[in-house]
Amino acid sequence: MNSFMALAFQEAQEGIDQGEGGPFGAVIVKDGEVVASGHNEVLKTNDPTAHAEMVTIRKASAKLKAFHLQGCTLYVTGEPCPMCFSAIHWAHLDAVYYVTTKREAAAIGFDDTLITEIILGKQRDTIPFVHTPHTEGQKLLNRWRSSLKHKLY
Amino acid sequence: MNSFMALAFQEAQEGIDQGEGGPFGAVIVKDGEVVASGHNEVLKTNDPTAHAEMVTIRKASAKLKAFHLQGCTLYVTGEPCPMCFSAIHWAHLDAVYYVTTKREAAAIGFDDTLITEIILGKQRDTIPFVHTPHTEGQKLLNRWRSSLKHKLY
Repeated sequence: MNSFMALAFQEAQEGIDQGEGGPFGAVIVKDGEVVASGHNEVLKTNDPTAHAEMVTIRKASAKLKAFHLQGCTLYVTGEPCPMCFSAIHWAHLDAVYYVTTKREAAAIGFDDTLITEIILGKQRDTIPFVHTPHTEGQKLLNRWRSSLKHKLY
Repeated sequence: MNSFMALAFQEAQEGIDQGEGGPFGAVIVKDGEVVASGHNEVLKTNDPTAHAEMVTIRKASAKLKAFHLQGCTLYVTGEPCPMCFSAIHWAHLDAVYYVTTKREAAAIGFDDTLITEIILGKQRDTIPFVHTPHTEGQKLLNRWRSSLKHKLY
């Protein structure tokens, strides 16, 4: 295990010792240097989005003052769930290394299989997503497009 | 448009006016009362995860001191991306209402189609996700399971 992954494991252990969330830690590295590290804080912060990857992406983005993390690599103890997978894409990370699989995490109760299967259309959604079209919708998007402050990310 | 969605649109407009991010706003409602509202803050905070839904889920969770938001409904101006879709599931929201579709957002440059298609296996991943198995992985999960502080979420 390289030193970056070892640090991700240390982060995960800290989270376990402090009862802050699931046993997952992450590290973001740029040019051979650690930019940020973090662990799951769902229980500590009551934030359902506070997975190790999310916490660490937020820290790295804040530190680098950049919403795109090109040139950065993520080391994470566990395989990312669909939320974190998508966030990794929004963050434009270069690469991701992980040790434990979703299957191993599911065996101890962390099961994001349902979310994945709903996205894949293999299971019916458990939450209704209701499309309520309205003429204001397109107007809003047009106002953004003609705003001088608009910028894509 | 009901008053909750109208508030989500106000939030989106605020984000446009202040140049804080994409034209998306959200509101979380419980028992007919607004718990939290927010808008996309990717540009303001340099946080690639700061989509309107994520910002608002975090605020609602903090306010209710709960990582599960059962009994809560999300009103969001635009259809959730896969990151927000998954976060909505992790948060256990009751229902989601949205106005503009992914297709409409894509037409002005907000295209999460790539992420969706990668998850669906319709496109090759643009980021390498590398599995590096190690015996420490299972040991970490076991330590969590036998920790007195462990708790599922």
